[in-house]
Amino acid sequence: MDRAIENTTLLTLAGEGLGIVDDGTIAFDGADIAYVGPAHEFDGAPERRIDGTDLVTMPGLVDAHRHTSHTLLRGAAQDLPEIEWMTDGLGPVSRHADVEDRIAGARLGAIEGLLSGVTTVCEYAGEVGDLVESAYRPLGARVVATETINAVVDDREERGAREPYAFDPEKGGAALDRAEALFDQYQDDPLVTPAYGPQALDMVPRDLLETVAERAGDHGRDVHVHVAQGRRERLQVQARYGEDASTVGVLDDVGLLSDRLVAVHCHDATTAERARIADADARFVGCPSSIGAIDGVVPPVVEFLERGAPTALGTDQAPGPGGHDFLRELRTAAMLAKTDAADPTAFPAWRALEVGTTGGARVLGLDDLIGTLEEGKAADVITIDATHSSLAPTVQAPFHTAVPNLVYSASRGAVRDVFVAGERVVEDGEVQGLDGESVVDEARERAERVFREAADDWRAAGSELVDAADDGRL
Amino acid sequence: MDRAIENTTLLTLAGEGLGIVDDGTIAFDGADIAYVGPAHEFDGAPERRIDGTDLVTMPGLVDAHRHTSHTLLRGAAQDLPEIEWMTDGLGPVSRHADVEDRIAGARLGAIEGLLSGVTTVCEYAGEVGDLVESAYRPLGARVVATETINAVVDDREERGAREPYAFDPEKGGAALDRAEALFDQYQDDPLVTPAYGPQALDMVPRDLLETVAERAGDHGRDVHVHVAQGRRERLQVQARYGEDASTVGVLDDVGLLSDRLVAVHCHDATTAERARIADADARFVGCPSSIGAIDGVVPPVVEFLERGAPTALGTDQAPGPGGHDFLRELRTAAMLAKTDAADPTAFPAWRALEVGTTGGARVLGLDDLIGTLEEGKAADVITIDATHSSLAPTVQAPFHTAVPNLVYSASRGAVRDVFVAGERVVEDGEVQGLDGESVVDEARERAERVFREAADDWRAAGSELVDAADDGRL
Repeated sequence: MDRAIENTTLLTLAGEGLGIVDDGTIAFDGADIAYVGPAHEFDGAPERRIDGTDLVTMPGLVDAHRHTSHTLLRGAAQDLPEIEWMTDGLGPVSRHADVEDRIAGARLGAIEGLLSGVTTVCEYAGEVGDLVESAYRPLGARVVATETINAVVDDREERGAREPYAFDPEKGGAALDRAEALFDQYQDDPLVTPAYGPQALDMVPRDLLETVAERAGDHGRDVHVHVAQGRRERLQVQARYGEDASTVGVLDDVGLLSDRLVAVHCHDATTAERARIADADARFVGCPSSIGAIDGVVPPVVEFLERGAPTALGTDQAPGPGGHDFLRELRTAAMLAKTDAADPTAFPAWRALEVGTTGGARVLGLDDLIGTLEEGKAADVITIDATHSSLAPTVQAPFHTAVPNLVYSASRGAVRDVFVAGERVVEDGEVQGLDGESVVDEARERAERVFREAADDWRAAGSELVDAADDGRL
Repeated sequence: MDRAIENTTLLTLAGEGLGIVDDGTIAFDGADIAYVGPAHEFDGAPERRIDGTDLVTMPGLVDAHRHTSHTLLRGAAQDLPEIEWMTDGLGPVSRHADVEDRIAGARLGAIEGLLSGVTTVCEYAGEVGDLVESAYRPLGARVVATETINAVVDDREERGAREPYAFDPEKGGAALDRAEALFDQYQDDPLVTPAYGPQALDMVPRDLLETVAERAGDHGRDVHVHVAQGRRERLQVQARYGEDASTVGVLDDVGLLSDRLVAVHCHDATTAERARIADADARFVGCPSSIGAIDGVVPPVVEFLERGAPTALGTDQAPGPGGHDFLRELRTAAMLAKTDAADPTAFPAWRALEVGTTGGARVLGLDDLIGTLEEGKAADVITIDATHSSLAPTVQAPFHTAVPNLVYSASRGAVRDVFVAGERVVEDGEVQGLDGESVVDEARERAERVFREAADDWRAAGSELVDAADDGRL
């Protein structure tokens, strides 16, 4: 037995409620949990012991949807009308970023996530394998590597919203080939699980969607799709599939509306369409900070929970919501749900912890492996310092104030250690696998170059941010 | 000249926009700012120099409404229907806290605020002088000491919502006397500004409200009132002053609706009443996290800004919203405003920085002294590490991504130094005036005792939290 965290407050997320064990011990054997339960029943002889007094120990958090590369462009676009955010804000900057820039951003964002207690990420990107090898592998994080599949010819900004985008079958095919290569490459990798990422129904031709659906069904693979993101997608689907068509209907027609589907966003879906997604046993990811900041909309997290769908949260990308602090995302999800429902009970703390752990695990199809602290599961475990001034004091009777305090109070500085498959990837608040200072330095140098090269395009795009900068407000 | 921060990115909040100076220097002479401007124009000879490369330097943040004592009871009540939050959640616990407990809570909450960049607090409490001397003075923070004035006899929970509470004139008079004593005690204190705090219109008799209004007018003092907090207050005001009466009308009748009024919350006021408050040149404080968490309501921050009223933010109390992290409050204010308005432009980053600095200064009547970085003003200054992984990278061209990144991205761990009146009260992320570890230890011991003694009352009150605890969700 390699390591034990002793005399700690465990939130196992297994069994009744949050599976709280007041004076608990958890021990790892290699990559797995060998013991979890009351301290006084533990009789192992671990090589290393951590005194868990004053620590809350729980499953690692699961960030179920992220485009981490964009962390390089943090601050590039926000406070804009939704329709301008990509076209006039982020787009003119991001198109100046090359593959090395994207890797530098992913490293920074991955560090940010780890430091907030995230052990598993669904990374959604083109050429996602580069990010796996350059960011997640050295940091030791678990990742669902979702290869973006997009076949749109790059002239779409010149087209009207109701004119179908042109597709380049070669581009789509190459993306599918990259996805397939990942399934081969990582088939025996304990930390990497590939998935298909057809970006959205307006960006992939029908035959390619059908191919993905067929292969996903044949091989038991997951398919992550941005679903019902807004007006532009809606108009494109109607232009291509007919006036009565909708994203959810087309998903069904092409064979993607199934329990293999991970549907992200869904804020532009009707109530009936959301019901159809849940009835198909598909899974849902909401990104409250991102959709709140960019669209001014609260995503239907509570609705999918009430429908009994596996439901998770994601931080999406840094520009707009700000970054990948997942503890903060739990709080934001609760706050937005409460005010959206005009009901302070709409999204309680225990629910946030469930969604951030077991919910994420179910949505990513990894619930046999992660999401709870149970013997035989992966040792993906985080410890949080209950004496950190952001969440102290905590009491254990007559109830555990650590539960609300983790969600509403804790800043990410309270996260002490993060273990993935038994490896300590964050120790006392410091990442171990990469030099954080170098990552930040490189990101800054690259960001300065990208923004400098993008300056003319950004100004020409003429978003409201240009005025703000000229007025000294930015 | 005592100290200079050199070669830093200044957000002065003075002049055009945010008053950004890219390569700036700020120097202190005693408690005041002696120089602020371009580094190359600075020719002083400071005794100590701080290299401001990689730092953003800006005015200290102003938390314009807080009951910091309750930090001891963090986690005591949340996720409850609004009407239960105080009566069945917080009340049964908080009534077991004594004066020493309240001080211990205030110390912890004051530390939490300082570490998030807050230099000035409006503290709202009964016997607030104890908190000033035991928490704010040793920590070196600036405080508007607002003595709660409340004359309600303690049996009000036994009364129906429409039956006027009984008043105890002696209790109200004693509170007024305490407030008056503060004005004497602190009349020459550079860091303490007293104010009157008639708690709410249902809790203070008319004659006492009139006395406060008169004295405030005579002496040029401010009056902070919780205004239009909800149904219970509305019914009480009608029961006491007539069916057509409203809080805002009574404020006017008793002489309190003036430019001396700081109106807090106002979420239960009508649009016409809010207009009347703004037209009277009164000032407004919104507490988005608190009112969002407890009432499920977004307070009218944007509305008061649009009416041109001096507008600030406050963190209220820890139970419910979680705590006093003011950087987080800026982000929450923006997120809630955007989703409430269904408009991502509703509350941009620059607006959040203004509200958190100059807005707070104006609302607290301290704008001659604080809120901007200008020569002759108090040296209330914070530095933020732009290389912290929560907000990096930042670029300065073609616009300053530090502006959105401070609001949407930065976690409080990015705050490096905090100066109040030229004194470094936080150094490299550590408070200087109290031993943080001892404060946390004492708070925990006291919290454990208070919760233990309150356990029976809490269970008897029978809120939904009791079920949650019994089910292992809390």
